[in-house]
Amino acid sequence: MSITTVSEALEIVLKTSKNFGTEEVRFLNTLGRILKEDIVADRDFPPFNRVSMDGIAINVEAFNKGQRSFKIEGIQAAGSEQLAMLNPENCIEAMTGAIAPKNTNAVIQYELLTIENEIATINLDAVKNFQNIHLKGLDRKQGDVLIAKNTIISPAEIGVFATVGKTTVKVAKQPRVIIISTGNELVGVSETPEEHQIRRSNVFTLVSILERLNIKAETAHISDDKNLLLSKISSFLNNFDVLLFSGAVSKGKFDFIPEVLNDLGVKKLFHTVKQRPGKPFWFGEKGNKTVFAFPGNPVSTFTSCLKYFYPWYYKSVGLNFENENQAILSEDYFFKPDLTYFLQVKITQKEGKIYATPITGRGSADLANLVDSDAFLELPEDRSNFTKGEVFPLITYR
Amino acid sequence: MSITTVSEALEIVLKTSKNFGTEEVRFLNTLGRILKEDIVADRDFPPFNRVSMDGIAINVEAFNKGQRSFKIEGIQAAGSEQLAMLNPENCIEAMTGAIAPKNTNAVIQYELLTIENEIATINLDAVKNFQNIHLKGLDRKQGDVLIAKNTIISPAEIGVFATVGKTTVKVAKQPRVIIISTGNELVGVSETPEEHQIRRSNVFTLVSILERLNIKAETAHISDDKNLLLSKISSFLNNFDVLLFSGAVSKGKFDFIPEVLNDLGVKKLFHTVKQRPGKPFWFGEKGNKTVFAFPGNPVSTFTSCLKYFYPWYYKSVGLNFENENQAILSEDYFFKPDLTYFLQVKITQKEGKIYATPITGRGSADLANLVDSDAFLELPEDRSNFTKGEVFPLITYR
Repeated sequence: MSITTVSEALEIVLKTSKNFGTEEVRFLNTLGRILKEDIVADRDFPPFNRVSMDGIAINVEAFNKGQRSFKIEGIQAAGSEQLAMLNPENCIEAMTGAIAPKNTNAVIQYELLTIENEIATINLDAVKNFQNIHLKGLDRKQGDVLIAKNTIISPAEIGVFATVGKTTVKVAKQPRVIIISTGNELVGVSETPEEHQIRRSNVFTLVSILERLNIKAETAHISDDKNLLLSKISSFLNNFDVLLFSGAVSKGKFDFIPEVLNDLGVKKLFHTVKQRPGKPFWFGEKGNKTVFAFPGNPVSTFTSCLKYFYPWYYKSVGLNFENENQAILSEDYFFKPDLTYFLQVKITQKEGKIYATPITGRGSADLANLVDSDAFLELPEDRSNFTKGEVFPLITYR
Repeated sequence: MSITTVSEALEIVLKTSKNFGTEEVRFLNTLGRILKEDIVADRDFPPFNRVSMDGIAINVEAFNKGQRSFKIEGIQAAGSEQLAMLNPENCIEAMTGAIAPKNTNAVIQYELLTIENEIATINLDAVKNFQNIHLKGLDRKQGDVLIAKNTIISPAEIGVFATVGKTTVKVAKQPRVIIISTGNELVGVSETPEEHQIRRSNVFTLVSILERLNIKAETAHISDDKNLLLSKISSFLNNFDVLLFSGAVSKGKFDFIPEVLNDLGVKKLFHTVKQRPGKPFWFGEKGNKTVFAFPGNPVSTFTSCLKYFYPWYYKSVGLNFENENQAILSEDYFFKPDLTYFLQVKITQKEGKIYATPITGRGSADLANLVDSDAFLELPEDRSNFTKGEVFPLITYR
């Protein structure tokens, strides 16, 4: 069996990324989704000469001629139609967010005024044209692209959608994913296992990992029975875009998954990756269906999903995803096997630097160990000694 | 009007944090919530002497006496009850995840075997006791605390809940939050604004910022009418734990919020903070109700929610939240006013270091500018010159 390196495996996985199209979603439900249209300014921003301080609007010419006291002619409230100042030697009280009244070209804030008997006196030596007036179109012009497509939507984008009146937004459609556990040793979460049994947990971990990508995955369990596996997986291949397996991909007598997938026409693209944990990872595709069959131990499943499925998803929805995260190893570490090692680490930040401290567990099967760590540091296969202060790629999950 | 520094303001805000109690939630729906009970191992982990490689289980004594070929007596599958090896000179095929058969104490993986005619021959010079057997209780003992309370729940914790059979989990109850906009200039997202109007956007930005904390906030809009404000806010104070306002807290003629809150018995704890943006921030409480009244410009609202509401929430649900995030300023920056400045920045990571590059906008009201940045760098009030390479606190929102 040929063995694949981690970088070869990732490259093969990324080559199978698929476009799942787009859908229109109500703007307030798009947080974390991938924008698939340019968002354009429907008008100038600000859309009018906008008062940016509460105070009085004046004509600067009058001020420049030496006038300091101005009779208040009216109030320009935010949300009211534009008033016109009739006498250029008067002023109009103007509120933040209001349109600047006609015939005015500066606003002096209340803090710099004395107001008595409807006369405002300005305590200033100089006033600039358009002081405290945010000019129409200064921020953006009508037709400007405010948000380019293929952006991950954050609260900032949600605010812009509202501003330009995008009640629905075109976003990448999510792949339909099913997460399948196998293994006769597994019982339900609400059951009490016999001595030789354990509860199903990997599928739920994977559901949560995918929830972070706003994918609502379905789950299934199939017993270690070849015919049952054939019929159920065949139906899943018809109804889902992605099948994620946990378990039954190694050398055991009941590890039927590779054989069953082969029988169903899923083309193996690799099986076994030079990594720990997760070495027996099987990956394949059939037409536009993608199959990630991860080894069954909890930490293998966890790491592999983050290392391979996440970038596959990002590429599928149109992001140029490169994991740029790195961290500084905070103590020397030794790992002998000729495998890429995903070291469980605790992250700390100090002075703008990210440090990774190894959390040494009792082997890759110890799920409880993941609770004490935050991330995996990816230590390359071609070395055994990793030195404090060196920098390695980081895959975080908190 | 006394002016409060940012650190004083934060301290006052944190002092008003409240305990909202706990609730039981189905384990798979707890991602991102705060755990409010210790999660304890219901049995040892592994719960039995667990086979960790596919191969044959033997009695090491026989091997040590020189025996290398072992007759296969049966198969121990994962999920099957424990077999007993009848003849100590035989072996039993044993699968990953299975209980190690009685009278065996090591497993030799298939890769190191030759099997012919139901006889397995071991190609090894030495075998260790319990080789490839993950011993009962090695990872954790029954009764061990696997996850301490007050942990933010990630996929790792979800997996542990499943493993120990916690179908429901006790988590911190969320505060009931309403986000209220005021301002007659605002129209709905689906409406076409008149020249002097703009669409409501801040409330939706805030809804999304709170969605990140798994808080489902309600929203409301009230016109700039004192009686309407009095009656509606009075009802909100009865029905919600937290009121977040956006706008009407400054010196404008229609900035009724501070006055109305005072009339309703909400005690002002501060009004005006030495910061930009967000200077007119008003904060108060009435009994167990907390009121954050942010200035109405989009960036003020955005920053203030992250800087004040987030830590208030974390403290309320029992986390010892200190923002440890910092970033390295990537270029010199100058900011004159004697105010803490929340500088909009773009984050890049390189070699385990976090760099912040200023995104210079056209003022704090430019929401579109937030789309180009990822975070705010908090520049202290007592200086004007900030030098490339210096490190400052960072508040991220992506």
